Amino acid sequence: MVEQAPTGDRWWLGFDIGGTRTKAGVVSDAGEVRRARMDETAHQPFEVVWQGLLAYAHEAVEAEGGASLAGVGVAAPGLVEPGFGVRNLPGKVPGIEDFPLRERLEAELGVPVRCVNDGAAATLAEWRFGAARGHDDVVGLTIGTGLGAGAIVGGRLLSTRNLAGGVSFGHATIEIGGRTCLCGNIGCAETLVSANAVVGRLRDYVARRVPSTITEAYLADPGAITFRTLVEGVEASDRVALEVMDGFCRDLGATIVTAIHAYDPEVVVLAGGPMAHADHFVPQVQAYVDRYAFRYPKDRAIPILRAERSDHAGVLGAVARVMQSAGAGASDPPAPA
Amino acid sequence: MVEQAPTGDRWWLGFDIGGTRTKAGVVSDAGEVRRARMDETAHQPFEVVWQGLLAYAHEAVEAEGGASLAGVGVAAPGLVEPGFGVRNLPGKVPGIEDFPLRERLEAELGVPVRCVNDGAAATLAEWRFGAARGHDDVVGLTIGTGLGAGAIVGGRLLSTRNLAGGVSFGHATIEIGGRTCLCGNIGCAETLVSANAVVGRLRDYVARRVPSTITEAYLADPGAITFRTLVEGVEASDRVALEVMDGFCRDLGATIVTAIHAYDPEVVVLAGGPMAHADHFVPQVQAYVDRYAFRYPKDRAIPILRAERSDHAGVLGAVARVMQSAGAGASDPPAPA
Amino acid sequence: MVEQAPTGDRWWLGFDIGGTRTKAGVVSDAGEVRRARMDETAHQPFEVVWQGLLAYAHEAVEAEGGASLAGVGVAAPGLVEPGFGVRNLPGKVPGIEDFPLRERLEAELGVPVRCVNDGAAATLAEWRFGAARGHDDVVGLTIGTGLGAGAIVGGRLLSTRNLAGGVSFGHATIEIGGRTCLCGNIGCAETLVSANAVVGRLRDYVARRVPSTITEAYLADPGAITFRTLVEGVEASDRVALEVMDGFCRDLGATIVTAIHAYDPEVVVLAGGPMAHADHFVPQVQAYVDRYAFRYPKDRAIPILRAERSDHAGVLGAVARVMQSAGAGASDPPAPA
Amino acid sequence: MVEQAPTGDRWWLGFDIGGTRTKAGVVSDAGEVRRARMDETAHQPFEVVWQGLLAYAHEAVEAEGGASLAGVGVAAPGLVEPGFGVRNLPGKVPGIEDFPLRERLEAELGVPVRCVNDGAAATLAEWRFGAARGHDDVVGLTIGTGLGAGAIVGGRLLSTRNLAGGVSFGHATIEIGGRTCLCGNIGCAETLVSANAVVGRLRDYVARRVPSTITEAYLADPGAITFRTLVEGVEASDRVALEVMDGFCRDLGATIVTAIHAYDPEVVVLAGGPMAHADHFVPQVQAYVDRYAFRYPKDRAIPILRAERSDHAGVLGAVARVMQSAGAGASDPPAPA
Repeated sequence: MVEQAPTGDRWWLGFDIGGTRTKAGVVSDAGEVRRARMDETAHQPFEVVWQGLLAYAHEAVEAEGGASLAGVGVAAPGLVEPGFGVRNLPGKVPGIEDFPLRERLEAELGVPVRCVNDGAAATLAEWRFGAARGHDDVVGLTIGTGLGAGAIVGGRLLSTRNLAGGVSFGHATIEIGGRTCLCGNIGCAETLVSANAVVGRLRDYVARRVPSTITEAYLADPGAITFRTLVEGVEASDRVALEVMDGFCRDLGATIVTAIHAYDPEVVVLAGGPMAHADHFVPQVQAYVDRYAFRYPKDRAIPILRAERSDHAGVLGAVARVMQSAGAGASDPPAPA
Repeated sequence: MVEQAPTGDRWWLGFDIGGTRTKAGVVSDAGEVRRARMDETAHQPFEVVWQGLLAYAHEAVEAEGGASLAGVGVAAPGLVEPGFGVRNLPGKVPGIEDFPLRERLEAELGVPVRCVNDGAAATLAEWRFGAARGHDDVVGLTIGTGLGAGAIVGGRLLSTRNLAGGVSFGHATIEIGGRTCLCGNIGCAETLVSANAVVGRLRDYVARRVPSTITEAYLADPGAITFRTLVEGVEASDRVALEVMDGFCRDLGATIVTAIHAYDPEVVVLAGGPMAHADHFVPQVQAYVDRYAFRYPKDRAIPILRAERSDHAGVLGAVARVMQSAGAGASDPPAPA
Repeated sequence: MVEQAPTGDRWWLGFDIGGTRTKAGVVSDAGEVRRARMDETAHQPFEVVWQGLLAYAHEAVEAEGGASLAGVGVAAPGLVEPGFGVRNLPGKVPGIEDFPLRERLEAELGVPVRCVNDGAAATLAEWRFGAARGHDDVVGLTIGTGLGAGAIVGGRLLSTRNLAGGVSFGHATIEIGGRTCLCGNIGCAETLVSANAVVGRLRDYVARRVPSTITEAYLADPGAITFRTLVEGVEASDRVALEVMDGFCRDLGATIVTAIHAYDPEVVVLAGGPMAHADHFVPQVQAYVDRYAFRYPKDRAIPILRAERSDHAGVLGAVARVMQSAGAGASDPPAPA
Repeated sequence: MVEQAPTGDRWWLGFDIGGTRTKAGVVSDAGEVRRARMDETAHQPFEVVWQGLLAYAHEAVEAEGGASLAGVGVAAPGLVEPGFGVRNLPGKVPGIEDFPLRERLEAELGVPVRCVNDGAAATLAEWRFGAARGHDDVVGLTIGTGLGAGAIVGGRLLSTRNLAGGVSFGHATIEIGGRTCLCGNIGCAETLVSANAVVGRLRDYVARRVPSTITEAYLADPGAITFRTLVEGVEASDRVALEVMDGFCRDLGATIVTAIHAYDPEVVVLAGGPMAHADHFVPQVQAYVDRYAFRYPKDRAIPILRAERSDHAGVLGAVARVMQSAGAGASDPPAPA
């Protein structure tokens, strides 16, 4: 890969630290991922993950040329302080909390470093390089084991002193009197709108013996029931699957309407595993939103877009974040007029 | 009042146009309301209201001295474009939509003019001159016939291209499958958390003959039941009143938790008529929030504050808005670091 | 009326004591009401009502001939002991509780006397003389200020030692976590399915300013809003009215499904004021029941019938009750086979 | 066992046909089970089960003496016609539907035979031989994979022409807008109050990653989570377990309140697997019932009793059913007075 280095093109380094995997990539100004790598790092202490980050960084510098490295971005779950690192992430990556990621990486690499929550990163990736380009007001939701979120408002990432702004939106209460969430609140969007929640609902029906084509698979191995099982049930016109899917569409629709009423986005971008089956629910969710979201101007559409850069969402979003601080083309917020 | 003019102190003019009343006031840099006026303008065409605004403006200029007038702010319900006027306000003030308020006022008075939604204005008033001073992240809610809202994020008013950001938060869905709201959505916070909603719930209990100390008053005149009636019932340990109040506290608590998870404020400020009885519900709401809101740092309190400038919320908030644009001491948003 | 007496036909006397009115009538074996009378008795002590009953009884005996009087039935709200009188009826008719109605009437008139709850009476009236003739298993529901009920099971009125069997069904919980009922329980059918509950819901929408054709009438006089207002709104395709009516249909449907799953009737009979507008909701309720009620045999219909004898429901049901005890043609319960 | 035969004591034969097991027993007049047997019969065609019944019957006759056999009772799930056999039982026991059990057994054994639904049988067993002796009005609920039920009203088993009276009570709607039940209805008691439903709810929490002491066991084998797991969680003060248990108590409480308002029992008897842990929920359920059930006389308790004859519920209830028809001491229904 030494051939690429001589070009001297400016490049960025992005990291995406997850609960079970760490991703890394080399990204161009235009959001092209020139090289990428993924490692399984489940249950590893952060010190081990950190050594991997460093090794990758030095390898990339060798290949791409250190002089043209413009900045480094790091995406991670939990509450992330842009100029520091991860502040709050109970349990998932032992030792990551309060590790001075930015300081250590800047000392190692001598370029600007910024950190960002992974839900926010996914939104930034779409806003800068993907489906939401060109908009000033964007909400991104990532439907995974939980419900990640990020908001672009007035042309910049919504962020707050206590780090939770935008990224905690999955914990908006949409069902008063509903079920307890892992965050301690009741009736959070995440209790209804996440792959885990949907699959839990599907299992509940089958366990209660509501007749279904899924029953046999469930009895053989409850753990094998996934969102794909739901989709297959819908394709087979299974009554249980249809009902669970309808509920998912309604709940996701209500979540998006709430996001619209809170942040007033021009577009909403969805990412996450279930989006592999987007045709099975996005049209129904769009219809819900068209019916129930308050809109102005009156005939304005608020399209629900499918994420285009999901494969590298964290890496690209992390890079987008540091680009913004480095002034590299990110639209600065408009001054109040 | 001619005596005041010679001081030459800089002053601001604020207007607050409501569905039934128009308020106006002269405000100092420090948020002191030096003169104020209120007119009943229910059902009047906006042209009449407009003539009133002009008359008041000229009167104020004469009294305070035109040279020291620094700017004019206008608060109004509905969707408001800062550099234009009201864009969307169905029915309440005939003719106000698409009236170029800023342009006309700037032409008349020769100073900067800005417009702002009244829920946002109430939040700005508290942030700049009232209970929320000194914070960068603030949510304000006004419990009235509906549920007004505004959000300060990262030290400036959250605002969006389509004008609804922050100000539509009262229409966040907090009860999936709940009742239809006047906005067309289902289960909005406003369907549960507004003076009208609470009083409607109280009337429903009594109309269904649930035994109550309120029954007699209700049968005599259903229209005489107000939030005060509820408070009196609570004071008399009336079971119906206690239950309606408990429900109100839970619903307001869930609304505030959702606001916290959406905007991550350091403090939340409440305004509106029911706040005259704040001791009857704010402590219970605070307890709900302390229990259910996700907080970081862990021991951080998120205080629910009582608005201090309610008497002139719209006027002061409108002035705060134009101050911001005029660069008069409003903290500009921090550049992304 | 002396002319009728000589015929010597056997006749029965029925009374229907309500919270605001007392009705009386002379009834033939076949359920023909030969004479009837209604008096306003609101707020009167029962002693006054009692004197009226006696006067009417003697007047009827004079007109019809005492020798052919076969028995007397008395319907009343609350918990009623057939061989005694009213045992529990808080507040509605002062002094009626524990008045030995049967003993006193038998002493006066020398014929068998039985008492019965008014919801049960309405069901008996339809079963013996009206829409439910010929069935062994019947549920009757009366939609009024509350929700009255009665059940015929295995060819006789369901009744229990503690007097509430069948007649308390309006307090079945159909909405866990719902609103408090006048009985002290939460989420009773009566909190949703009664004229008062429906009208309360309608008022709530309008008070919250959801746009509606009803608004003007409501603002002029909230007390003038009735079930008829709802029906007129539906006819005018008013969105609020349509939604409240849909909710009513669903809630009444769920109530009937619960009655079916509890008592397994062959038919369900509906009575009460809203039935004047039955065409506006019974077909929709029937569709709900057809979809959700478990039925065996599989193709069996469970028709929702409209009461035919509403004008004299209490009087006729009271007579049906004493007929049963007097062995006058009421099918005795089948011996267990 | 031949020694017992000479005593000549009258005896009864009871069968209990389940989806996976068939039980049989010899029962004395006093409800003593003198001999009992259980066979695994899952997935067997009914013809095989039938041969087993016959073999057991002849074996018992040989041992106990045919002359003193007084009658035979058969309990089975589904809709059961006392004088025929099972009429409706989709899927569970292939071939049992429309098999003339009574006719065939009477032909074989020459004594009266009656059939009964198993939920009704469990109630009869407690009423005649167990916890509910001496009462005229009783409701029995069996919390198993579903929610079985039976009602004694006015001193006899509630039963209807279409066979579902009393036994379908588990499908009363207690949660309007709730989840679909295997019966096709929405929000049935059985969707919330059954071992399957409770365990499903527990799994849902853990699958959504709400922190819990149960998580490890769940991840190792979701199928290993049972009601016992819930109880162990409660004992360990696990937050998830406590919340699921609280919900179960509320839902079971609401179900019992509905049963009380529908059937007005003097006592309620609970049976089924979870009752092995009755101390963990019955007191809480009793408190709910004491608070929310309408009761007359005012200070009357409506005790929730624990079944005493669960080991042989079906066998004893079946015998109680045939005893009733054979006039063997079962209190006949009181004639209407």
